[in-house]
Amino acid sequence: MEPVPSLPIIKNAARRIKPYIHTTPVMRSDGIDAIVGASLYFKCENFQRVGAFKMRGATNAVFSLTDEEAAAGVATHSSGNHAQALALAAKLRGLSAHIVMPENAPAVKIAAVKAYDGRITFCPPTLNDREQTLAAIVDRTGATYIPPYNDYRIIAGQATAAMELLERVPDLDMIITPVGGGGLLSGTALTAHYHERKIDVFGAEPSGADDARQSFLAGKLIPVKDPDTIADGLRTSLGTKTFPIIKSYVQNIHTADDDQILEAMRLVWERMKIIIEPSAAVPLAILLNEQLNISGKKAGIILSGGNVDLDRLPW
Amino acid sequence: MEPVPSLPIIKNAARRIKPYIHTTPVMRSDGIDAIVGASLYFKCENFQRVGAFKMRGATNAVFSLTDEEAAAGVATHSSGNHAQALALAAKLRGLSAHIVMPENAPAVKIAAVKAYDGRITFCPPTLNDREQTLAAIVDRTGATYIPPYNDYRIIAGQATAAMELLERVPDLDMIITPVGGGGLLSGTALTAHYHERKIDVFGAEPSGADDARQSFLAGKLIPVKDPDTIADGLRTSLGTKTFPIIKSYVQNIHTADDDQILEAMRLVWERMKIIIEPSAAVPLAILLNEQLNISGKKAGIILSGGNVDLDRLPW
Repeated sequence: MEPVPSLPIIKNAARRIKPYIHTTPVMRSDGIDAIVGASLYFKCENFQRVGAFKMRGATNAVFSLTDEEAAAGVATHSSGNHAQALALAAKLRGLSAHIVMPENAPAVKIAAVKAYDGRITFCPPTLNDREQTLAAIVDRTGATYIPPYNDYRIIAGQATAAMELLERVPDLDMIITPVGGGGLLSGTALTAHYHERKIDVFGAEPSGADDARQSFLAGKLIPVKDPDTIADGLRTSLGTKTFPIIKSYVQNIHTADDDQILEAMRLVWERMKIIIEPSAAVPLAILLNEQLNISGKKAGIILSGGNVDLDRLPW
Repeated sequence: MEPVPSLPIIKNAARRIKPYIHTTPVMRSDGIDAIVGASLYFKCENFQRVGAFKMRGATNAVFSLTDEEAAAGVATHSSGNHAQALALAAKLRGLSAHIVMPENAPAVKIAAVKAYDGRITFCPPTLNDREQTLAAIVDRTGATYIPPYNDYRIIAGQATAAMELLERVPDLDMIITPVGGGGLLSGTALTAHYHERKIDVFGAEPSGADDARQSFLAGKLIPVKDPDTIADGLRTSLGTKTFPIIKSYVQNIHTADDDQILEAMRLVWERMKIIIEPSAAVPLAILLNEQLNISGKKAGIILSGGNVDLDRLPW
């Protein structure tokens, strides 16, 4: 079995993607600090290219390919931020990106992938159809499948967000990230594990898609059935590569319900004047609802993305 | 006649207010740069305390008072960002702030002033009533009236935003700011005038309240009648102190209509993932509509504020 990404692998990923991504700022909020009674450091991946941390993993995967592999392009199935990220990363290397999307994908998501010259193939909106359509494309074109999270190149890429955060604030007591498929959480946990100083890492998950918490407690993968949450980036389940890392290096996983997520999202909009998507608000939601005692501590929060439909705000 | 603020006066203001304000970041957007064909540097005063640059002028005025003057408190009439800014600045110095507000002021604005311990006096919603109510309070309490813009302490405070911007990006070709009463525009023009390198300064005004453009063209003050614009921070007219500075040191004033302002505002929300209020979008609106040729230039834009009612977005 391939070993999990080492510190040199993550550092390599950081070097590889640096010319293509934004080094995002770390923001503070006196008002929110006062509410939670701690010092929060928000790593603003909502300002990342394509509006989400997903750009890191996709860029690392695309630029890890040999020239020969790369020539045939890349492919994935996704209707979310990974699709846009892969399309842009491929465009930056001058490759084709084949994106399988469900026929009922929102027009705004389709337009975003097209804006980065992604080649979209539509299919019926079932996982089975998506996988079969993708397999056919890979067969026909020889493109390399780049999964959204269950892949060490992706995990190493996502790990670079926490690495930048710790370069700015090396003495954090903990880092909290959202968890869906676990790419960001597992990457963050590895970076923290390799840091010279002990840092606790926590996952924050919507209670309507709490497979990570259940899997963590049971010690085995328990995929979510019928996820129901406004945090649309977190409806996926942990994978065979992300789960073992999370089991080993994450302290705990906490959940928040949709009302709590929306309250936290709105608080960030109002106090920090920045736009985050519901998924990005889950870590703050668990703090506002005292799932985790952080009194007096220095906590990093990764604001994972800022892609929302401004015509359909959830309040 | 008192001379306009000199460079040492503005530097003094910067030193005086530094402990109490945020040094706001300068942000870039590749996407918006590509649309306008120039390099834009956004000075994010939407991240300033109370969510607007108004904190700078109010803080400078409050901390300029002698202890004797200060003891009696400060007063103003305003229902906008200046009211919140004055209330917070007074609180930071441990003074009372008397704020005269119209009876029909939005609940969210009233709550914001109360959150900073401002003492609100309501009056009928006419300028005459506001001025009389304010005069009675000043008479009774001995409080010092701090006007929203027509005051050199305020102008010197607002001038510090451009000073910070030029410390970060000394080789700007121009700076564009919104213009309402002219505090921000006149302060910016003075800072640019004192800069070692030539920098053009432009005002950006809603066409539904274009007194600054009309006054600038006529060479004399022409106050706006019945302003009608979504940019609620810019409905006021230039004053006797701001206008002469603008006449001397500003290159030109351009206008945008409400549709153009909303288009620019939404573009910033979508591309930059930050929240700005309509008034802050006017400079970008004039660029998007090619009122000003900035091809290949480096332009600074002051994003003046980020206070919007998230329950009543204008689209």
